[in-house]
Amino acid sequence: MRFSKYFLKTNKNVSDEDKCISAKLLKQGGFIRESVAGRFYFLPIGQKVQQKIMKVIKEEMDLEGSQEMVTPILHPLELWKETNRTNTAGFELMKVKDRRGAEFALGGTAEEMFVDLVRQYKLSYRDLPFQLYQFSPKFRDELRARGGLLRVREFIMKDGYSFHRDENDFKVEYEKMKNVYTKIFDRLGLQTSIVESDNGYIGGEYCHEFITESEIGESKYFVAESGNYAAHEDVTVFEKEIKNKNDQLKPLTEVEAKRGNAMKDGVDFHKLPLWQQIKDVLFVDDKNRFILAIIRGDLDVNETKLLHLIKGVNLRHATDEEIREQIKSEPGFISPVGIKKGLDKQVELVIVADDSLRTISNAYGGNNKKNQDLLNVNIDRDYKPDIEGDIALARAGYEAKNKMGKLVEKKGIEVGNIFQLGYHYSSKMKGAVYVDTDGKEKPFYMGCYGIGIGRTMAAIVEKYNDQKGIVWPESSAPFKVHLIALDGAEKEAELLYEEMIKKDVEVLYDDRDKTAGEKFADADLIGLPMRIVVSKKTIQQKSCELKKRTESETKIIPLLLVLDLLM
Amino acid sequence: MRFSKYFLKTNKNVSDEDKCISAKLLKQGGFIRESVAGRFYFLPIGQKVQQKIMKVIKEEMDLEGSQEMVTPILHPLELWKETNRTNTAGFELMKVKDRRGAEFALGGTAEEMFVDLVRQYKLSYRDLPFQLYQFSPKFRDELRARGGLLRVREFIMKDGYSFHRDENDFKVEYEKMKNVYTKIFDRLGLQTSIVESDNGYIGGEYCHEFITESEIGESKYFVAESGNYAAHEDVTVFEKEIKNKNDQLKPLTEVEAKRGNAMKDGVDFHKLPLWQQIKDVLFVDDKNRFILAIIRGDLDVNETKLLHLIKGVNLRHATDEEIREQIKSEPGFISPVGIKKGLDKQVELVIVADDSLRTISNAYGGNNKKNQDLLNVNIDRDYKPDIEGDIALARAGYEAKNKMGKLVEKKGIEVGNIFQLGYHYSSKMKGAVYVDTDGKEKPFYMGCYGIGIGRTMAAIVEKYNDQKGIVWPESSAPFKVHLIALDGAEKEAELLYEEMIKKDVEVLYDDRDKTAGEKFADADLIGLPMRIVVSKKTIQQKSCELKKRTESETKIIPLLLVLDLLM
Repeated sequence: MRFSKYFLKTNKNVSDEDKCISAKLLKQGGFIRESVAGRFYFLPIGQKVQQKIMKVIKEEMDLEGSQEMVTPILHPLELWKETNRTNTAGFELMKVKDRRGAEFALGGTAEEMFVDLVRQYKLSYRDLPFQLYQFSPKFRDELRARGGLLRVREFIMKDGYSFHRDENDFKVEYEKMKNVYTKIFDRLGLQTSIVESDNGYIGGEYCHEFITESEIGESKYFVAESGNYAAHEDVTVFEKEIKNKNDQLKPLTEVEAKRGNAMKDGVDFHKLPLWQQIKDVLFVDDKNRFILAIIRGDLDVNETKLLHLIKGVNLRHATDEEIREQIKSEPGFISPVGIKKGLDKQVELVIVADDSLRTISNAYGGNNKKNQDLLNVNIDRDYKPDIEGDIALARAGYEAKNKMGKLVEKKGIEVGNIFQLGYHYSSKMKGAVYVDTDGKEKPFYMGCYGIGIGRTMAAIVEKYNDQKGIVWPESSAPFKVHLIALDGAEKEAELLYEEMIKKDVEVLYDDRDKTAGEKFADADLIGLPMRIVVSKKTIQQKSCELKKRTESETKIIPLLLVLDLLM
Repeated sequence: MRFSKYFLKTNKNVSDEDKCISAKLLKQGGFIRESVAGRFYFLPIGQKVQQKIMKVIKEEMDLEGSQEMVTPILHPLELWKETNRTNTAGFELMKVKDRRGAEFALGGTAEEMFVDLVRQYKLSYRDLPFQLYQFSPKFRDELRARGGLLRVREFIMKDGYSFHRDENDFKVEYEKMKNVYTKIFDRLGLQTSIVESDNGYIGGEYCHEFITESEIGESKYFVAESGNYAAHEDVTVFEKEIKNKNDQLKPLTEVEAKRGNAMKDGVDFHKLPLWQQIKDVLFVDDKNRFILAIIRGDLDVNETKLLHLIKGVNLRHATDEEIREQIKSEPGFISPVGIKKGLDKQVELVIVADDSLRTISNAYGGNNKKNQDLLNVNIDRDYKPDIEGDIALARAGYEAKNKMGKLVEKKGIEVGNIFQLGYHYSSKMKGAVYVDTDGKEKPFYMGCYGIGIGRTMAAIVEKYNDQKGIVWPESSAPFKVHLIALDGAEKEAELLYEEMIKKDVEVLYDDRDKTAGEKFADADLIGLPMRIVVSKKTIQQKSCELKKRTESETKIIPLLLVLDLLM
């Protein structure tokens, strides 16, 4: 491709509101341009990168036996109603009505569409397992787009969906997909951790994110020092050490406590350890229930874990007014003990206890009245949680579950994810069944698998750049060679270009009427793997200058040999 | 690909509501499946066909110098407002709002998006000309979807947009694109006529459709016997022969005429030729103006031509009540003579005359009163049209314009179109300019170029099929070879399959546990170019049976040679 004819406009002056190096370089290099916030044009050279990335993904997916197809972009909204996702995913879902009044979702993911397709066929166990995938535009009605291609409102996703007889069959596929994804990202130059994650609005019981470490990434996760455990902060499970659990239980005691509302005030007033205090956090959920989360004083509540336990969609903190008027308690002095007594009929309160409260005895904390505390509070004896489980927030330095070593905190970019869906969709969508060996209809056991193309592109640039610009790895480079003609060597450069085209070398040929400095700067910014310069000086020696973008030294190569080097 | 593992389910029992052979065969063969009316899944084998078609298009577009990129699918509605297309294209346009209230159009075409992109750069004459294109989903809020992939609500379109200094530069591109498109469709096995067409809601002054002849097609067009002229019925221009134009003008005469309302009633009553009668048709346009279209009695009004002359968006026939109460005339007796007298102030009436009225003298027709006619009506002397031009409907047998021969009527499928846009968009969208040699900013001169992928696929199947199924031409065949293993020859078939895969032969291998009859029927239905059968009988001769889908005879080929034959 001749630069002079190419719709490629570099611009060193593009500002970088995001402080995000990939956004800056991709804009400056003429790869992408924003239409409105979070919606991007992929310019010709940027589209080439997208296609290279998709090619790698397609090759590995096809090799695995997965089959590419494509669904409509507008999903009949009834399908999303079947699975109740219009509610659970409502805040990010865009909807549209046609002129006959039919309603559609602009697909964020396509589970319903694939299940709706597959259930049309009377499949039998002989047809299973299989996986179908597509490259297709996805929409997210994000409140804030940011980071160039890192968090957008519209993007191409490779989304795959697998159908199985049972969990065992699915698990084979799930493990296979871990390898396929790892290989895809390896080929693209991205080392990824496979990180246990929250399944968000997809559903199912467990899932993993493929995260490539990066300071700019939005995903906070922990890796155990042993290397055997990696989990998103929202699902990280850690050891809660036994404290004074085995102490003799003492009698529950009311005391006056003129103290402030903070945890530290309790510690100072009672001269007892923080871990022995009960931390009470009162929330209101999407069904307007009050949720009292209680946890050992040295730990914090993780709202995602809490939401899972209560099967909720979102939470907000209760106001002081609600605490006083509806719960009849007092901010800073809430206690699970006796809190349900005297509540109005219409007030629903659910007490959720973190299992860390089983590691202590004779705890202390508020008494639902201002300046009144309780000492020697004990679970089971003095209060009974409605739900008990793990709602604790992990922190760096904690011991990972099963003693797999200290947790190390990381930040990274989530480039792919894989989900166990189990029966989540097939149980909700009527007729999503196959006929088993015994002649009986059974629901499909499912999984799904996604990769964001634009985000992967951004992640590559985040990793491969220097002060001068992008440093594309060969697998995603839009061209392999950046050929530069300098003054007085145009004819020879032209000949070399023609030869490269004949031999299918992917080459960007800078034939513009620009200075050597400008051409070199653009070559560095655009970042193709090889730069070849033909100048007056080099052609006197019947040679050209070759420099790899990853190296600083240039080599003099005879013109006759350079093509062989590139093949 | 192994049939047993492939998500490919043929079904001979798919009904065919459309009486459309391509819809029937593509559904029966497992290529597509409808989600809701007009929105299709492209199943794995159907997606392969789409990709083959896109590959041919991409190769020819790239060769021409056009550059692939991609725009967001949601277009900011403000852009469509700049060009006023929210009104003119409103009835087919789908709109969507995000949660912050920003409005978007679901792109039907992308002129505004490309202009908005290009105007962001300070381009100069040196940057011109260029063409950008994309493969991207398009949406049409059609009232009625029909014909499988022929008229849908969602489809992939290759849409290209070219930018030029002036009309001359554009015309070079336009002619080039005629060749590029002809070559694309030739490679896909579709002979196309380049047919002058109406530009619909795209704008611009002229355009051409690429139509492949087909009985099922919705496009009615005319081709002159000379072969030098082809035009869509809506824009076909023909010779209007001179009648009694040169007769001496006689005095205008009122007569009583107790006759019916039809044209024939006038002929019978006055014993004068049909062509001498004036045909009056009263419409109401989208601005609530009355439009009186008048034309020679032997011709009919073409509403598309009429809309162009009055620069309107749509028309309806006036009711009898409107004719009587607002126009103060009488159905069947309308006349342009004196019709504007005595109209209420708020009634606007535009008289549009077809230029055929210049070919006659002393015409006859109504007198705006029941049972009253006028004889010897002459244009200019007795009435003055507000607008004069060509509003006549072409018919088979008429002489084409410039005496290019008799018009022959054809039906076909529009698979592509090219549009001169001129300054239509660049004049409406602020800043859509380049800096010319004289340092002045000038608007871009533009063109655009579209191909519907799904419709092209349907057109191929409409042309290439027989009673047994599809007969794919090689350029769009999803696989080249249909390999069939019959009882007792599975091992040899398997070996042959493995060898083909190694040599990159695109092969569908029917390894299913089915009868020979079922396998042959599926092979015919799916329609791959070559069928190879390995059976007990053939392997005794160390050979296989090869049959082309286009031929009925089979050949016996030694197994050792068959691969060479396929390469």
